[in-house]
Amino acid sequence: MVRGRISRLSVRDVRFPTSLGGHGADAMHTDPDYSAAYVVIETDAEDGIKGCGITFTLGKGTEVVVCAVNALAHHVLNKDLKDIVGDFRGFYRQLTSDGQLRWIGPEKGVVHLATAAVLNAVWDLWAKQEGKPVWKLLVDMDPRMLVSCIDFRYITDVLTEEDALEKQMLAQGYPAYTTSCAWLGYSDDTLKQLCAQALKDGWTRFKVKVGADLQDDMRRCQIIRDMIGPEKTLMMDANQRWDVPEAVEWMSKLAKFKPLWIEEPTSPDDILGHATISKALVPLGIGIATGEQCHNRVIFKQLLQAKALQFLQIDSCRLGSVNENLSVLLMAKKFEIPVCPHAGGVGLCELVQHLIIFDYISVSASLENRVCEYVDHLHEHFKYPVMIQRASYMPPKDPGYSTEMKEESVKKHQYPDGEVWKKLLPAQEN
Amino acid sequence: MVRGRISRLSVRDVRFPTSLGGHGADAMHTDPDYSAAYVVIETDAEDGIKGCGITFTLGKGTEVVVCAVNALAHHVLNKDLKDIVGDFRGFYRQLTSDGQLRWIGPEKGVVHLATAAVLNAVWDLWAKQEGKPVWKLLVDMDPRMLVSCIDFRYITDVLTEEDALEKQMLAQGYPAYTTSCAWLGYSDDTLKQLCAQALKDGWTRFKVKVGADLQDDMRRCQIIRDMIGPEKTLMMDANQRWDVPEAVEWMSKLAKFKPLWIEEPTSPDDILGHATISKALVPLGIGIATGEQCHNRVIFKQLLQAKALQFLQIDSCRLGSVNENLSVLLMAKKFEIPVCPHAGGVGLCELVQHLIIFDYISVSASLENRVCEYVDHLHEHFKYPVMIQRASYMPPKDPGYSTEMKEESVKKHQYPDGEVWKKLLPAQEN
Repeated sequence: MVRGRISRLSVRDVRFPTSLGGHGADAMHTDPDYSAAYVVIETDAEDGIKGCGITFTLGKGTEVVVCAVNALAHHVLNKDLKDIVGDFRGFYRQLTSDGQLRWIGPEKGVVHLATAAVLNAVWDLWAKQEGKPVWKLLVDMDPRMLVSCIDFRYITDVLTEEDALEKQMLAQGYPAYTTSCAWLGYSDDTLKQLCAQALKDGWTRFKVKVGADLQDDMRRCQIIRDMIGPEKTLMMDANQRWDVPEAVEWMSKLAKFKPLWIEEPTSPDDILGHATISKALVPLGIGIATGEQCHNRVIFKQLLQAKALQFLQIDSCRLGSVNENLSVLLMAKKFEIPVCPHAGGVGLCELVQHLIIFDYISVSASLENRVCEYVDHLHEHFKYPVMIQRASYMPPKDPGYSTEMKEESVKKHQYPDGEVWKKLLPAQEN
Repeated sequence: MVRGRISRLSVRDVRFPTSLGGHGADAMHTDPDYSAAYVVIETDAEDGIKGCGITFTLGKGTEVVVCAVNALAHHVLNKDLKDIVGDFRGFYRQLTSDGQLRWIGPEKGVVHLATAAVLNAVWDLWAKQEGKPVWKLLVDMDPRMLVSCIDFRYITDVLTEEDALEKQMLAQGYPAYTTSCAWLGYSDDTLKQLCAQALKDGWTRFKVKVGADLQDDMRRCQIIRDMIGPEKTLMMDANQRWDVPEAVEWMSKLAKFKPLWIEEPTSPDDILGHATISKALVPLGIGIATGEQCHNRVIFKQLLQAKALQFLQIDSCRLGSVNENLSVLLMAKKFEIPVCPHAGGVGLCELVQHLIIFDYISVSASLENRVCEYVDHLHEHFKYPVMIQRASYMPPKDPGYSTEMKEESVKKHQYPDGEVWKKLLPAQEN
């Protein structure tokens, strides 16, 4: 049973110096240090249960998100968890519609990332108290309760509460793909070696980063397609590098490598641009995927309305936690577009597996064209890391939202005073 | 001549407790404390000239914007001003595309507001060194130089550099409207009194806040329309309160008061929603206006492409300063949509007058359907406050971007340690 009053909220700036190895590099983010604003909330229930929530960042600026979490804290502190989840829509709106704070969003960028971190912690706390993983909490939830978690503001023209209730349906490892082989920062040799290993491990779907240099892309795509053969799936990801005409032109040249999709061909804000690109590339057999930087449900609503994408990539930390992701899953179902989540950053795989398993069991009831990103990075810092078997996510069984970090890891990577950064920072300054 | 290396950047959190008087209240922002993140940059040129830049905020969260300004500071410090303005597009992109920092935007919300504050200071510094107000610096600028300030990334499908050069044209107080009378926080008596005074002062265009309660709106609109008569212009502003169908329904009921436009009928992110509303309301004689919370040029591009608005409201602090506003002015010109800037917040009138005068002289060359918001608040804190005569903005003559604040005012209103807040905060805590 839900219990306790939120008595403490702490937030820490945790950074992993991944840029040192070229991990995670793409056409727009050349030197990411995979990082997180890590929120822990405690209650006065004296059961020792803490809610842990993160939002994913790339290093610099994490301190800004931390600052925003602190700005939101007063909405959470001294609230009964029962009251929060009893009117989760109201609580969500309180966080996102604070009359003063919403100006610096609204519902986007830093404040929305901070909102996600805070709400992710609330969901973790709730699920742990119920003794269930988040996906199971959702699957077991009374549909009315589930729908009451969603703020329908600005989306009622495509999805109403009644509508959402009808969409609730029931059905019964979720397929994954790997992005670990082909970051832009890797040499051809590293790429070949990682690809060979991934094939040995049973992976059948591979994503390659493109967009910085066409000749490089041609060479790298050729290498991968040669290695994986014509049957296995290849996805491409441009990380917003192109303008609209450029995206069409560039991808027309990469079409011969038979990519399933091109991901983030242009600005995540450009709905009509994605629609134009989609119209040009779908006849070449290439779908459009986007979402990891789409900042709220209103953008997803329009991408669906405009037929601007063929694969929808929710992000567990960019949107306002489970609550807002639920609204997007339901809209995707209505428009019959498969959801293929973004993952891979710090804790994103851990979080999003809950959403996608719920989507499969209770919303889409289908695996067709559905696949969830996987990156084999940084899982060792989590208490309940994802389990991948035969290239599939195995449903997590531990209570909560799987993002509790090992205290040891947090301490070591806290920025700028953790052991790792104390060593690295003076070296970087020289 | 441009000179000096940026040797210092400071940023302060300045808040005016406007919520105490109900000033600025609307359907979504019920208790705003008009505030600013106030940036001052200095050079080693030993001429005593400082660049002052602000971004406008509503109180809470200003500390988050301050934190983001500090996160951007290293891109500015130790740069020669000559190098910055010599490759302003490159500098702009450096600020907005930092490989780690862009994740928490990109180009939206907190980081983009911070970018605006920093770049506003750079423009102020540049113009002061040239001994010109910003609008004159722009008007006098060689078109190639002007266009080199704009980042065309993500908008080349509607506007290219060559295109922009062709749009440069030449022509020769700018009309204003007032929002000071009819904030939602005011009683009917206050409204009547302010409206009578404004009529006496020669105002002919009035804006009223709507959206919280239909009966209230009907009564308030009736009062204002009765007072100003059938000929004078009335605008309405819902501040994003409605969903799409609701906006159409609500405004159909307010149509009898003959508003020129309804401003922000729904989420600023909902381009297709604005297009739907526009389609429904234009036949009733009501135009759609939006922009004050449209977070970047990509959103404006789509609003124009989708015929989603009849009046485009740029904001000098929401977009990436002069640079990004230039791109929007040029796109608006291409689509033949009048630009009617948002203003009224701390310093917004001071800033945006430069943009709109430049627009009139060098881009649109027309006053038809064009009008700039004016709110009579907080101008006394600025060294070079706006001059309004006969309900028109008079072109500012002092060098710079008009946002240098009086040091006395900054000190008094600095949050939380200024004299005003030291008195107020303990009282608010009780």
